[in-house]
Amino acid sequence: MIVIIKKDANEKSLKNLISWLENQGLRVNVNRGVYQTVLGLIGDTHSLNAELVSAMDIVERVQRISEPYKNANRKFHADDTVIDMGGYKIGGGHFQFIAGPCSVESEEQICGIAWHVKEAGANLLRGGAFKPRTSPYSFQGLRDEGIEFLLKAKELNGMPVVSEIMNANHLPMFEQVDIIQVGARNMQNFELLKELGRQEKPILLKRGLANTLEELLMSAEYIMSGGNGKIILCERGIRTFETATRNTLDISAVPMLKRLTHLPVIIDPSHAAGDAALVYPLSMASAAAGADGLIIEVHNDPAHALCDGPQSITPEAFATLAHDVQKILNIVGKNRG
Amino acid sequence: MIVIIKKDANEKSLKNLISWLENQGLRVNVNRGVYQTVLGLIGDTHSLNAELVSAMDIVERVQRISEPYKNANRKFHADDTVIDMGGYKIGGGHFQFIAGPCSVESEEQICGIAWHVKEAGANLLRGGAFKPRTSPYSFQGLRDEGIEFLLKAKELNGMPVVSEIMNANHLPMFEQVDIIQVGARNMQNFELLKELGRQEKPILLKRGLANTLEELLMSAEYIMSGGNGKIILCERGIRTFETATRNTLDISAVPMLKRLTHLPVIIDPSHAAGDAALVYPLSMASAAAGADGLIIEVHNDPAHALCDGPQSITPEAFATLAHDVQKILNIVGKNRG
Amino acid sequence: MIVIIKKDANEKSLKNLISWLENQGLRVNVNRGVYQTVLGLIGDTHSLNAELVSAMDIVERVQRISEPYKNANRKFHADDTVIDMGGYKIGGGHFQFIAGPCSVESEEQICGIAWHVKEAGANLLRGGAFKPRTSPYSFQGLRDEGIEFLLKAKELNGMPVVSEIMNANHLPMFEQVDIIQVGARNMQNFELLKELGRQEKPILLKRGLANTLEELLMSAEYIMSGGNGKIILCERGIRTFETATRNTLDISAVPMLKRLTHLPVIIDPSHAAGDAALVYPLSMASAAAGADGLIIEVHNDPAHALCDGPQSITPEAFATLAHDVQKILNIVGKNRG
Amino acid sequence: MIVIIKKDANEKSLKNLISWLENQGLRVNVNRGVYQTVLGLIGDTHSLNAELVSAMDIVERVQRISEPYKNANRKFHADDTVIDMGGYKIGGGHFQFIAGPCSVESEEQICGIAWHVKEAGANLLRGGAFKPRTSPYSFQGLRDEGIEFLLKAKELNGMPVVSEIMNANHLPMFEQVDIIQVGARNMQNFELLKELGRQEKPILLKRGLANTLEELLMSAEYIMSGGNGKIILCERGIRTFETATRNTLDISAVPMLKRLTHLPVIIDPSHAAGDAALVYPLSMASAAAGADGLIIEVHNDPAHALCDGPQSITPEAFATLAHDVQKILNIVGKNRG
Repeated sequence: MIVIIKKDANEKSLKNLISWLENQGLRVNVNRGVYQTVLGLIGDTHSLNAELVSAMDIVERVQRISEPYKNANRKFHADDTVIDMGGYKIGGGHFQFIAGPCSVESEEQICGIAWHVKEAGANLLRGGAFKPRTSPYSFQGLRDEGIEFLLKAKELNGMPVVSEIMNANHLPMFEQVDIIQVGARNMQNFELLKELGRQEKPILLKRGLANTLEELLMSAEYIMSGGNGKIILCERGIRTFETATRNTLDISAVPMLKRLTHLPVIIDPSHAAGDAALVYPLSMASAAAGADGLIIEVHNDPAHALCDGPQSITPEAFATLAHDVQKILNIVGKNRG
Repeated sequence: MIVIIKKDANEKSLKNLISWLENQGLRVNVNRGVYQTVLGLIGDTHSLNAELVSAMDIVERVQRISEPYKNANRKFHADDTVIDMGGYKIGGGHFQFIAGPCSVESEEQICGIAWHVKEAGANLLRGGAFKPRTSPYSFQGLRDEGIEFLLKAKELNGMPVVSEIMNANHLPMFEQVDIIQVGARNMQNFELLKELGRQEKPILLKRGLANTLEELLMSAEYIMSGGNGKIILCERGIRTFETATRNTLDISAVPMLKRLTHLPVIIDPSHAAGDAALVYPLSMASAAAGADGLIIEVHNDPAHALCDGPQSITPEAFATLAHDVQKILNIVGKNRG
Repeated sequence: MIVIIKKDANEKSLKNLISWLENQGLRVNVNRGVYQTVLGLIGDTHSLNAELVSAMDIVERVQRISEPYKNANRKFHADDTVIDMGGYKIGGGHFQFIAGPCSVESEEQICGIAWHVKEAGANLLRGGAFKPRTSPYSFQGLRDEGIEFLLKAKELNGMPVVSEIMNANHLPMFEQVDIIQVGARNMQNFELLKELGRQEKPILLKRGLANTLEELLMSAEYIMSGGNGKIILCERGIRTFETATRNTLDISAVPMLKRLTHLPVIIDPSHAAGDAALVYPLSMASAAAGADGLIIEVHNDPAHALCDGPQSITPEAFATLAHDVQKILNIVGKNRG
Repeated sequence: MIVIIKKDANEKSLKNLISWLENQGLRVNVNRGVYQTVLGLIGDTHSLNAELVSAMDIVERVQRISEPYKNANRKFHADDTVIDMGGYKIGGGHFQFIAGPCSVESEEQICGIAWHVKEAGANLLRGGAFKPRTSPYSFQGLRDEGIEFLLKAKELNGMPVVSEIMNANHLPMFEQVDIIQVGARNMQNFELLKELGRQEKPILLKRGLANTLEELLMSAEYIMSGGNGKIILCERGIRTFETATRNTLDISAVPMLKRLTHLPVIIDPSHAAGDAALVYPLSMASAAAGADGLIIEVHNDPAHALCDGPQSITPEAFATLAHDVQKILNIVGKNRG
C-alpha cells in the first residue's frame, strides 16, 4: 500500500503516522520527493484499515497495490479450480452448458424442456422458482412449487439443477438443488453471501449490473472466507449508456478474471443481450474468449414464457448453438466431460 | 403502450394479435404507416405482460408510454406526501437534517455525537449497526449491540433514529427504530422490500448505484403495494466513469423525482462524494435544488472512525453547514418544523 | 413517430398541432386513451423537427419509432455492402486483418513490421502518423514524415495502408493512403465527416468512447449523405465504470450493427483492452461473433514503442493469433479473399 | 510515480530498469515487499513515458501519484485565475451569466433576445452559428451569417459575445467574437486545441460527455501549453445509464475542479438536463455549489427554436432565475462585477 502525504504536512504528524503504521506490524519506506512524500508500506496490509489512514489530516490519499482479495486470488493459488457440479466438472479445461427456462411454469414445461436441452448437449438444467422482478406487478415465480417441479425434472432425467436464491430463509427448500445461484441484484447482499459461505454446494455467483470485477471477487471472497470455495463466477452484462442492447456483455471479463482468479468463469448471453437473436453470436464469442461454460435461457414457446420471453431461444435453436459452440471448444481445447 | 409490428408481418398473425389484445380488455388503434404498422393500446396496460408481447414473432418492439408505477406516480396523487418521522415532518415544504456517524461504535460515541448534531440543528439521528461492506475483512458493524447503543442515544436526547436493515429477520431488533433505511445495495432486494411493505414505519429508500429513477420508483412501488406508503427517497450518488469522486451525485434527480412522484426526496452528500470536503458544497446545492432533507455523516474523530472516515465531517463542520443551508432554505421557502 | 400529449392539454391547441403536422405532409392518427392522448404520425418523419414538436406546450414527449438514419439502414438496403480496400474485399463474407504499429516511428520500423504482418496473414497495414494524445506532453506522431514512411512501406511490399486523419486540412497528404481512419475522439467531428463525404476512398470510422450505435450510424450517415458510401465501422471499446480494462469491448455491437446496417463491422481489440495479453482472446471472440475484420497493433519491440506499447503484440504473437482466428473463420464461413 | 514489479521478475532485468530510470534523471527508491517489489520514482516524471515503462516485461503496472497537468494545476498556482471576458471578470469571486439562444436564427431574433437577457442581468451573450448536430438532416446553423448577426447584436447593446468554433479554419470569422467556445464533442479535437493555444482571447472549454475531470484539465493544458492561459471550464452533463434526463449534471465537478485547478468553472444547466423545467433548480444548485458562472439557453419562442427548443427558457423565466440565483450569490459571497 502506498500513502501519499500532503505537500504541507508537518514533520511531527508524519513521524507519528510512521510509528503508528510500524506498530501495526508494517515496515515503512519513506520516499521524499520534490513535490511529495510517499510512504511505501511493506507487509500484510489486508488487515490495515485504509479508510482510517486516508481520513488522517496529513494524508492526501492511499493507493492499494495488491488486490484486496486473498482466497480468490490467482497469485496465491496458481492452478485452475475445478468444481464438481452434481457429477460434471467445470474449470481447468472442462466446459459445461447450463440450459433451461427463465421461470419454472409447470411440471410439464420444465420436464419437457429438460429432455430437449439434455438431448442437445446440456448437462445441467436451470429453472427459476424465485424471480427478482423490477415490478411488483410482474410474475414473481412459482416459489416452493417451482422448486418441486424442478426437482421432479431432475428425478426424471437425472440432470443436476441450478436455481436462484433470494433469501437465506429459503435454504431448506434448496436442499436437493445442486447449484445455488446468486443473482446480479444480490451480488452484494452480504448477509446472504455469509450464509452461503456455510453451505457445501457450489454457488453460481452473478456479477452485479454495475459491479467491477474486483467487487465480484470480493463477493466471492465473502463466500470463500466462510469456508465454501466452490464458486462459479458468471458475467451477465453490465449497465452502460448503450440502449440498443439491454445490457453490455463485458467479454473481456473472461480473460481478465482468468488472470486475477483461479475460479471458473461462465457467461450468460441471454440476460446480457435481452434479445434471442444475439444469444448465438455471443455464445460463440464467449467460448472463443475462453469461458468455462454458458448458462442459456431455453423455452419451448418463448412468446408465451411468463418471464424474459424476448431473450429465450427454442430447444431447436439451442441444439444448433450447442453444436456450433462445440466446434469452437475443439479449437480452444476444452472438453465437456 | 405502443406495439411496433415487423415490416414483413403476415396479416393473419396481426389479426390474431389484435384480437388477443382486445380480449385483455384493451382498445387497439391500428396505425398503418408506409414502412411500419404500429398498434396503439388504450386502457389499463399495467396488467399487460409487455415481455410476452415483445417476444411474439411479428412484433419488432414494444414501447411503454405511461409509467409502470402507480402508487408512487404524481399523476394519480398530485399533492406532496408529508411523512411524519418520529414527530418531525418531511415533504410538502418541510425539510429535515438527519445526521450521525456511519457506524455506531460505542455508547459514548453515539450519545456524544447525538448531542452535538442536535445542538447544530439536526432533528434526526442516524447510526449504522449493520454495515454492508465490500470486503469481508472490513468492520461489519456492532449489529444488535449497535442498535442498543443507538436506542440509548434516542432515550437520552429524544431524537428519532434512522438505521439500515440488511435482513428481514432483523426486523424485531428494529422495533424502536423510528425510520428503517434500505441501503443502495439492497434497493432491489425484493424479498426485503415486500417485508417492509407490511411495516407501519417510514422507510428511507436509497437509490442503487446503477439504478434509474424509474427503478427506484418501482422499488418504492414494491413497498407501497404492500400497504406502506411512508417512503422517503434518497439519492446518494451513482456509478459513472468518473474516478475523481467516489460516485457522481445526480443532482437532477431532485427536480426530476419531484415531477414524477409525490414522495419526499433527500440527498446523502457524504456517500455521493466519499470526501469530507465536498459535503458542504453538495449540501448547499441539494437544498438549492429543492431537496426535502439531507442525511449526513458526522463523526467526532473522523480519522479514527471505524468506517467511512474520509467522508465524515466533524460536529463543528456540521454546525457551519446547517447554519448556511438554513439560509438557502429561507430562499427556497422550506421550513424545518 | 409518436407524440404523447399532456394530460391537461386544451382541445384547441391539440387541433392546431394536428393541422400543423398535416401541413408537413404527415397523416395523423389520434389515439385517445383514458389517461393520455397519443398521436401516431405516418409518413416520412426524417424531415420533421422532433425537437420543435417536443418543445410545444401541450406535448409531454416525442418518441421515434423508425431509425433516424437512412443510407446506413439495412431496412432500405438488405444486402451486405462489400467494400474494396485497395484490392482486398471486406463485408459480405470477406474478412480482413489490418495490422501494424500504433505509430510510425521510422522507415525501418514500419517496413520491418509490414513485412512481418504480411507474412503472418495481414493484407492491410496500419500505421499512425497523426496521433491524438490526451496529454500535450506525449509523442504526437511523425505527422507528414510518418505518412511518407508508411507510403514507403506500401511501395516496398504492396500492402494497402490505413492511417488516421485529425484535420481535414491534411487531406492532401492522404492522397496515397488507401483507407482513411476517423478516430474515436473525432467520431462526432462533423466538419471532418462532411469533408470525408466528398472523398472517394473507404473510411474506417471508429465508434466514440461514449457513443451509442445509433450515433455511430448517424456519423456514418454524415459521410454517406455527402456521397461516400464506403464506410467500415469499427468497435474499439466503450467507457464504463470498470477499471480493470482500459475500455469495455462491446462485443454485442457486432451482431447488433449487422442487424441495423449493411456496412462491414470490424473490431479493434488492442485499444479496447489496452493490454497485450487480452488481444488474442478478444480477437478470437470477435471472429466468432461475426466481425468482418480485425485491426491490431503489432510492434517489433512493444517495450520501446513510442505509443501504446502495453497493448501492442509482437509479430510472432500476431502470427499465432492470425493462425488461430483462421480456424474460427472456417467455422463461421468467412474468407480472406 | 510508482512502478510495481511482477512477482517473478529476475534480478538482472530489475537492475537494468533501475539504471535506465536513473539515467532519465530520476531517483529510484526500491521497496521490497513480501509479495511485491515496488519502485518509487522521485523527480520530474512529466517527461517520463509511463506507457513505455508499463510495457516492459517485468513491470506489472505503473501508477501515477502526481497529476499529469502542470499549467492548470492548483498546486503550482494557488490563487484563483481571474479572466477578463470583454470587460467582465470571472473567477476569484466574480460570477457571470452568459445567456442567449442555442442558434442564431435571424438578426431580429438575436438582437431581441440580447436586449432581454441584458435587462435580466446577463453580461454576456451566447449564440451558436456553427452547430454540431448528431444528424446530418438537422439544422446546422447559419454559419458565417450567424456570426454576423451575433456581432450586430454586440454592436447594438454592447454585450461581449460567446460562440462555438468547430474548425480552426473558421478562426478569421471569430475575430470580433470575445470568447471562443469549444463544444463537448471537440474537447479532444487536439488539432483545434493547439490552434486555440495560439489565440489571445478567452476559451470556454466544455467537458466531453464521457471525459473525466483529469482529461478536461489535460485539454486545458493543451491550450495553456500553447501560451493561452485564459480558460473557462464548463461542466455540461455527462453520459450515464440514466435516461430520465438527457445527461447527468456532475455537480461535484464544481468543488472538485476548484480543488484541482485555479481556472474558473461554470455550468451549462440547459444541455445538462435537456429540459427547460430543470434549468431553474440546476442553476440554483450550481451557484450554491460554488460555480463561477452559468451559461443558459434563452429563446423568445422555445417552441419554434430551430434547435434545442425543449431545453430553452423564455426571457421571463430567465429574469426570475437570475433574480433568485442572485440571492444565492449573496450567501456564498460572489459578485457580478
